[in-house]
Amino acid sequence: MRANLKTSVQTFMGCRAEYEESEIALFGAPFDSTTSYRPGARFASSAIRAESIGIETYSPYQMADLENLKIFDAGDLELPFGNAGKALDTIEAFCGKVQDDDKMPVMIGGEHLLTFGAVRAAAGRHPDLRVMHFDAHADLRRDYMGESLSHATVMRRVWDLLGDGRIFQFGIRSGTKDEFDWAASHVRTELFTVRGIDSCAEAACSYPVYISVDLDVIDPSEFPGTGTPEAGGVSFKDLLDALLCLRGLNVVGFDICELSPHYDVSGISTALACKILREMLIAYH
Amino acid sequence: MRANLKTSVQTFMGCRAEYEESEIALFGAPFDSTTSYRPGARFASSAIRAESIGIETYSPYQMADLENLKIFDAGDLELPFGNAGKALDTIEAFCGKVQDDDKMPVMIGGEHLLTFGAVRAAAGRHPDLRVMHFDAHADLRRDYMGESLSHATVMRRVWDLLGDGRIFQFGIRSGTKDEFDWAASHVRTELFTVRGIDSCAEAACSYPVYISVDLDVIDPSEFPGTGTPEAGGVSFKDLLDALLCLRGLNVVGFDICELSPHYDVSGISTALACKILREMLIAYH
Amino acid sequence: MRANLKTSVQTFMGCRAEYEESEIALFGAPFDSTTSYRPGARFASSAIRAESIGIETYSPYQMADLENLKIFDAGDLELPFGNAGKALDTIEAFCGKVQDDDKMPVMIGGEHLLTFGAVRAAAGRHPDLRVMHFDAHADLRRDYMGESLSHATVMRRVWDLLGDGRIFQFGIRSGTKDEFDWAASHVRTELFTVRGIDSCAEAACSYPVYISVDLDVIDPSEFPGTGTPEAGGVSFKDLLDALLCLRGLNVVGFDICELSPHYDVSGISTALACKILREMLIAYH
Amino acid sequence: MRANLKTSVQTFMGCRAEYEESEIALFGAPFDSTTSYRPGARFASSAIRAESIGIETYSPYQMADLENLKIFDAGDLELPFGNAGKALDTIEAFCGKVQDDDKMPVMIGGEHLLTFGAVRAAAGRHPDLRVMHFDAHADLRRDYMGESLSHATVMRRVWDLLGDGRIFQFGIRSGTKDEFDWAASHVRTELFTVRGIDSCAEAACSYPVYISVDLDVIDPSEFPGTGTPEAGGVSFKDLLDALLCLRGLNVVGFDICELSPHYDVSGISTALACKILREMLIAYH
Amino acid sequence: MRANLKTSVQTFMGCRAEYEESEIALFGAPFDSTTSYRPGARFASSAIRAESIGIETYSPYQMADLENLKIFDAGDLELPFGNAGKALDTIEAFCGKVQDDDKMPVMIGGEHLLTFGAVRAAAGRHPDLRVMHFDAHADLRRDYMGESLSHATVMRRVWDLLGDGRIFQFGIRSGTKDEFDWAASHVRTELFTVRGIDSCAEAACSYPVYISVDLDVIDPSEFPGTGTPEAGGVSFKDLLDALLCLRGLNVVGFDICELSPHYDVSGISTALACKILREMLIAYH
Amino acid sequence: MRANLKTSVQTFMGCRAEYEESEIALFGAPFDSTTSYRPGARFASSAIRAESIGIETYSPYQMADLENLKIFDAGDLELPFGNAGKALDTIEAFCGKVQDDDKMPVMIGGEHLLTFGAVRAAAGRHPDLRVMHFDAHADLRRDYMGESLSHATVMRRVWDLLGDGRIFQFGIRSGTKDEFDWAASHVRTELFTVRGIDSCAEAACSYPVYISVDLDVIDPSEFPGTGTPEAGGVSFKDLLDALLCLRGLNVVGFDICELSPHYDVSGISTALACKILREMLIAYH
Repeated sequence: MRANLKTSVQTFMGCRAEYEESEIALFGAPFDSTTSYRPGARFASSAIRAESIGIETYSPYQMADLENLKIFDAGDLELPFGNAGKALDTIEAFCGKVQDDDKMPVMIGGEHLLTFGAVRAAAGRHPDLRVMHFDAHADLRRDYMGESLSHATVMRRVWDLLGDGRIFQFGIRSGTKDEFDWAASHVRTELFTVRGIDSCAEAACSYPVYISVDLDVIDPSEFPGTGTPEAGGVSFKDLLDALLCLRGLNVVGFDICELSPHYDVSGISTALACKILREMLIAYH
Repeated sequence: MRANLKTSVQTFMGCRAEYEESEIALFGAPFDSTTSYRPGARFASSAIRAESIGIETYSPYQMADLENLKIFDAGDLELPFGNAGKALDTIEAFCGKVQDDDKMPVMIGGEHLLTFGAVRAAAGRHPDLRVMHFDAHADLRRDYMGESLSHATVMRRVWDLLGDGRIFQFGIRSGTKDEFDWAASHVRTELFTVRGIDSCAEAACSYPVYISVDLDVIDPSEFPGTGTPEAGGVSFKDLLDALLCLRGLNVVGFDICELSPHYDVSGISTALACKILREMLIAYH
Repeated sequence: MRANLKTSVQTFMGCRAEYEESEIALFGAPFDSTTSYRPGARFASSAIRAESIGIETYSPYQMADLENLKIFDAGDLELPFGNAGKALDTIEAFCGKVQDDDKMPVMIGGEHLLTFGAVRAAAGRHPDLRVMHFDAHADLRRDYMGESLSHATVMRRVWDLLGDGRIFQFGIRSGTKDEFDWAASHVRTELFTVRGIDSCAEAACSYPVYISVDLDVIDPSEFPGTGTPEAGGVSFKDLLDALLCLRGLNVVGFDICELSPHYDVSGISTALACKILREMLIAYH
Repeated sequence: MRANLKTSVQTFMGCRAEYEESEIALFGAPFDSTTSYRPGARFASSAIRAESIGIETYSPYQMADLENLKIFDAGDLELPFGNAGKALDTIEAFCGKVQDDDKMPVMIGGEHLLTFGAVRAAAGRHPDLRVMHFDAHADLRRDYMGESLSHATVMRRVWDLLGDGRIFQFGIRSGTKDEFDWAASHVRTELFTVRGIDSCAEAACSYPVYISVDLDVIDPSEFPGTGTPEAGGVSFKDLLDALLCLRGLNVVGFDICELSPHYDVSGISTALACKILREMLIAYH
Repeated sequence: MRANLKTSVQTFMGCRAEYEESEIALFGAPFDSTTSYRPGARFASSAIRAESIGIETYSPYQMADLENLKIFDAGDLELPFGNAGKALDTIEAFCGKVQDDDKMPVMIGGEHLLTFGAVRAAAGRHPDLRVMHFDAHADLRRDYMGESLSHATVMRRVWDLLGDGRIFQFGIRSGTKDEFDWAASHVRTELFTVRGIDSCAEAACSYPVYISVDLDVIDPSEFPGTGTPEAGGVSFKDLLDALLCLRGLNVVGFDICELSPHYDVSGISTALACKILREMLIAYH
Repeated sequence: MRANLKTSVQTFMGCRAEYEESEIALFGAPFDSTTSYRPGARFASSAIRAESIGIETYSPYQMADLENLKIFDAGDLELPFGNAGKALDTIEAFCGKVQDDDKMPVMIGGEHLLTFGAVRAAAGRHPDLRVMHFDAHADLRRDYMGESLSHATVMRRVWDLLGDGRIFQFGIRSGTKDEFDWAASHVRTELFTVRGIDSCAEAACSYPVYISVDLDVIDPSEFPGTGTPEAGGVSFKDLLDALLCLRGLNVVGFDICELSPHYDVSGISTALACKILREMLIAYH
C-alpha cells in the first residue's frame, strides 16, 4: 500500500530523490498575476503532479526511464499574488541556491514572466548565457499597459540582461508590428515553426543554455489549456524533435510555462505537459 | 434591425442614457491580480453585459422597469494587470469624477479589493460614510502574504479609512481566528446570515452609505461561478430581501464583485448577477 | 482608461471606423433555427467580439495591421427566431444597403443558411457572381425534412440563383449519395482538401466573388466549437493558405459561419475564428 | 444479458408496455427553433431516456413503482427544425390519436411552445379544459419579435383557445410589465411560489386538466440545465408537493419542457427531470 | 517559501503531524470499480487535498482551528482496480493498524463500498459498534447484478456484521421497494431528512460509533459532483447540524465518500467536501 | 413521424436489420472497472448511438452507404461492474453465438480488457487467428498491481492464447521498459505510427483476422475523450487509411474501445468514433 506511516508525498512521477543526492531540483511557481487575458497558470504545477500518475516514466522516444535519474521535487514556491517583483526575487533566490549546490533548477510555471527570475539566476552565474525560447508570442514589448514586468515583456527583460544575439525564438506567430520590427535586429526569431533549430543548437554549443518553453507554442488543438491560444502552432512531435535537438548542449536550467489546466476539461493539455517535462528531464539531466 | 449605421453598443440591458443626462454611471473593472485562489473575476463585466439580454428589464419584485431609469454604461476601465495600486487609483479617479458630476457610480468588479478604490472616492466626498458589506469572507486581514493590498485585506483597508463602527458585515462564514477576534471590537459582523439588516439600516439611515456585494455571499449552489466558493451561504431571496431593506438609505455608490464566469459553464451565476444588478439599480437610483 | 464618458462600444478588435468613412461593414447574424443537430451558432458574433481582445490586430502572415483599415462594426442584426424567410430578407436588405453605399458587407453567422441572404444581395448586384465555399458538408440537398430553407440546402438554393459552374466547394467530406451525384454535374467539389484552389482562383479571376467559410471545414481538433463536427478536416494553415490564394480576386462580400462557442469550453474555436476573420479582412479589403 | 437477439429498445426506465395494452403513451418532442436565448431543449428526451437508468423506478414519495404501470414509450416525433407550425400540427395529431385510443399522452419537450400542440389536441376533445402551468416566465406576450408562435407567447396562444379563468400559473418571476398587467384580468398568476395550489386544485376538480411544467420554474441551483435560468425559483420539493396536490384531478395530458441538458455538465438537471417525470407518471396514471 | 529542501508534502490543509504524535490518521482510498452509474470517486482524495488550500483551517461553526489538532495525512492507499475484495482487505488492515496504535482512522473514499472495510476493522475491535449512515441511497440490497460486494449493498454487508438495530440511516430517498421493506424491520431509516438525529445520538451514546457520510445525501444543487445525484436532498447546513449533534459520542472512525470531482467543473462539490471534513475532524477528534 | 405505435428503437444509425437477416451483430459492452486512470468508457456505446444521428450514413471515402448493409444492433450487454471475469465470459458467449450463426460480431467497448472476451470467442472458432491492434499503449504487462485481467494486460492475455507472431501492433507510444523488451521477441510492434500496415496485411492475408482499435491510438487533439490521452498519436486520416488497407482480409470480428465521452464536452471524440465505426462496418462487412 502506497499510503504509509512516514510521510505522504505527491511529486512529479518518479521524482523521489532527496535534495542532497539529486542532480535536478524541480519546483512549481504558482503565479499568474500579470496575465492579461485568461489567468489560471497558477494551477499548472499542482495539476501536472497529480496527472503525472496517468503516464509512464519510461520514454520510448529516448529509450530511458525517469526513475533512473536523481530528481528532487521541491514542491511549490510561495509567491505573493499581485507582486511580480517579489515573485521574481523568490524564484531567483531559489534557483541560485540550487545552482550553487551544483544542481540544475527546473521550473514549472506559472505565467511566462517568471522565466525572468530563473534567467536572472542563471545569467548571474553564467554571463555568456544563451536562451532558447519556444512560444507563440514574441513577448518583446518594452512595457505593457505601462508595466515593465509583464508576461508580454519577459523576453525584452531577458534581452536587457543578455543583449543582442543571445535569444533564439521559435514558433512565434503573434506580436505587434513594433515587436517584430525590433526583433529583426536584436534576437533570432523563427516565425511559425521550429525550423533552423539545428543551426541554432550549433551556434549555442559552446555556451551555457537556458531553455524556456511557453507551452502555447504548441497548436491549440493539442494544447487548448492555456490563456491565449494561437491557432497555427507547432505539433507535439515537432516540439519534441526540436527539444531533442538540443540534447548535447550545456543546459543550466529550463522551464515550462503557461499551462492553464482549468481551461481544458479533457485534461489533454496537462497530460501533454507531463510528457514534455518527462522528455526534457531525461534529455538535459 | 438592431445593427445600425451609427454605432454598435453593447451595454447592460436597458442602460442607454448618455452620460450627461444620466443619474447613474455604471462601469466594469476587469482586474483580479491579487486573487489568491481561482482568478477570473476580470471577465465578469463582459459576461454580465452579454448575458443580460437573456433576462427582462422589468422587476416583478419592485414592480419597476430598468428602462425607465437614466443609466449610462461607461464600459470597462482599463486597469494594469499586476499593479493593484494603480488599478485602485484609476477606479477612485473615475468614481470621483462621476460623483462630482452628481451621479452615482456603480462598479461591476473584478476582485473585491477594487471596492477600496470606490470607497476611497466616496469617503473623500462623504467623511461620515457607512459601508454595508455582504460577503462569505471577512476580508479583515492586516496583510496577506506580506501584501497590504489584497482581496483578503480589503475591508481592513476600508476600516483604516473609516474607523470603528462604520462597517456592517453580513453572511460572513470564513476567516482566520485573528480576523474574527479583531472584528469583534471594530466592525459589526453577522455570521452566516443577513439577520439584523433592519437594525443596521436604521443605524445608517442618517448617513451616506456605500454597499459592497461580494457575490460569494450567496450559496455556491446558486452561485458556483466564483473563485472561492464557501458552502452554507445565503440564498438569492435572502440577499434580495436584505438589499431591498436598504432602499430608503442615502446610497452614494455600490458594487458587485467576484463573479468569475468561466467557472460556471451553465451560466446561472452570471444570470443571477444580472438580476441582482437590475434590482440594485432600481432600488438605489 | 478605456471606459469613457461618451459611449461604450464593443466591436471586433480594431474596427472603430464610422459607417460613412468605412470600406467594410461587419455585422453579426445571430440565428440558428434550422440547425438540425446542435444549435448555438447564434452566439458566435458576440463571442468573437468579446474574445478578439485576446489576440493581436497585426498579422505576421500578411505583415499588415487591421487597425490600418477602415472597418465599421454594425453590431448584430435583429433576426426572428424560427422564421428563416424573414431572417434572410433582413440580411439581404442590410447587405444590399451596404453594397449600394460602395462598401463590402462581411457577415459573422449564424448558421450557414444565412449565407443565402448575403448571396442574394450580392447576386442582385453582380449577376455573374462566383461563390467560393469552404465546408465539411456539401449542403446541396433539394430540401431537408420537407423544408427548402435549411442549413443543409443552402448551396442548392445558391445554385438555384446562379446556375451551373458558379460554385466552387472545398473540404467537403459529408453528404448523402444523392448530393454527391448531383454535385458532379452542377458544381465543382473538392473532396477532403483545399487542393485546386489555384486553378479555381484563376477561373474566377474576372468575376465578382463571394466567399463563404463554414468553419466546420476545419478539423474538429482545431475547431471543436461547431454543431456537426466532422473528423478529417483541413488545418488552419491549409485554410489560411487557400484564403490567401484568393487575395487578388474581386471579392464583393464574405462570411464565416457555424461557430457554436458554447460547445468549446476551452475557447480555442472562437480564438481561431477571430484569426480567420482578421486575415480575411486584411486580405480582401 | 440485456442485449438480445430480438430488438434493442431504449425507453424511459420501466416503460416497456406495448402501445395496445398501455394506459399512457410517452413521447419526445425534440424541437427548439423559436427559443430566443440558449437553445438545446431538443436534446432533452434523448438525455432523459439515457440517464433514467441512473435512478430507481420506485418512488418513496408515493410508495409506488413505475414498473407496475402500463406505459408505452413511443420514442421521438420527427419535427422539422425551423417550422413551428408544422411541428405543432404533428404533436396535435399524435396526441389526438393517443387520446382517441383512450390513453393519456405525455410529452417530453422540447421548447415550451410545443405545449400548444398538445393543448390543442386536449382542448379539441375537452372543451372545458383547465391548464395548470408551472414556469419561471409568464409566456403571455401577444407576439415576440413579430412572431405569434414563440416560446414567449405560448400561454397567450393557449388563452386564445380557452379564454379567461382557465389558466393557473405558478412560480412566475419573469415577464414584461405588459404581460403582468394583462395577466391580472385573464389568468390566475401566482408570483414566485406554488402557494395557492390547493385552492386551484379545488377550482379545477370537476374539469379535465392539462398540466404543463416548464422545468425552469425550479431554482437554477437545482436545475441549471435550461435556456433562460431565473434565480429565485421553487425547490424540487415544493414543486413535487404541488404536483402531488393535483393527484385527484382528471388529468388528460401533461408535459415537461425546457430541459437543455448540454448546459449542465454535471447532469443533475437531467436526473431531476427523470424524477419529476417518474413522480408525475405515477401520480396521474 | 513553501518549497523546501527537505521533502515536498501535499496534505489536507493543516494536517502536518507525524504518525507517531498523531491522534488521527487520515487516508485516501481511490477506488470506484463497483460504481454502477458514473465512476470517478477515485479522484476524490487527490482533489480534496489540492483544493483544501482554498479554504480556511478555522471553523466559525465550532470556533476551533484544525491546525491545533494532531492529524497525520497518510496519503492514498494503493488499491487494485477491479478487485473489490482485495481493496477491502487493504483498508481493513490499515484501519486496524491505526486503531491498534490508539488513533482514529479517517477515510476519504472512494465509492461507498469501501466503508465496509473500515467498519470491519472497527467492529473487530468494538463488537458493540453502532453506525451512523448519511446517504441518498439505502444501499441495502442483498446483491447487485449478482455481486454481493457493491456500492449498492454496502449497508447490507455492514448489517451482516452487526445485526439488527445497529444502523441508523438519514436522508435516504432512493431504493427499491424490497430495500425499504427490509429496512423497516432491521435498521432505523429516516427518509429524506436528518430529523431524529438527537434521539439516535442518545440511543448510541454509550457505544462506540462509526460515522459514514455518503456525500450524495446532500442536495445535488450544493453537491453536483457525485455519481448518482438524487434531487430532494438535505442542505449543507442540515448535514452539518446533524454531524455536530454527534459530537459527544465515542466516535472510533469515520469516512466521507462518493465525491466524483470531475463531474463538477465549478469545484463547489470539492470545496464543500473540504469543509465537511474540516468540521468532522474538529468535532470528533 | 419517427415516434411510432410499435416499438421505439435507438440503434447506431442505419442499423435496422433483424437479427435473423443480418450479416453483422453490433453490440455495446459498458464496462470499465479495471481502468486504472480515468474511467467512463462504460458510456461509449450509449453516446455513440445517440450521436450517430449527427453524421451521414454515406461514406465519401468508400463511396458506399451503411444503409445498404444488413446490420443488427443488439443494444448493450449487461455486465457486472467490478467482476472482470464474468464480464469477459458474457462477451465470449455472445460473440460465440453470433459467430455460430454465421454473422460477424462487432463490439463497442468499454475498456480495452473486453477485447479479450471477443478474441477468445474468435480464437475458439479460428485457431490460426491474427490480431491487428491499434493503440497508444502496449498493454503487454504480465499483470497490473497483481491483477492478471486488466486493461494494461489485455494483449498479453491475447498472446497467452495465440502465441508468438500473431499480434501486430500500431501506433504504440506508451509502456514500461519491460513491455517494450518483451514485445521485441513476441509481437510485431510499430512505434508511434501505422507504417508497415501493408506488409502486415500481406502477412495476414491467408488467416482469419480480428481487429481491435483502442481509440486512444488517435492523437488527443482529435480524440480527447479517453481515459489516458497520450500526445503524439496518429491522425484520423492515418488510422482510416490503415484500416482501409485491411479491407481485403478475412475479418471475423472487430471492436472499438476506450471512448470515454464525458471527458470531451465538445463531442468531437464521439463524432469521430461514429465515423470510424461507419467506415469499419462498410469496409469489413
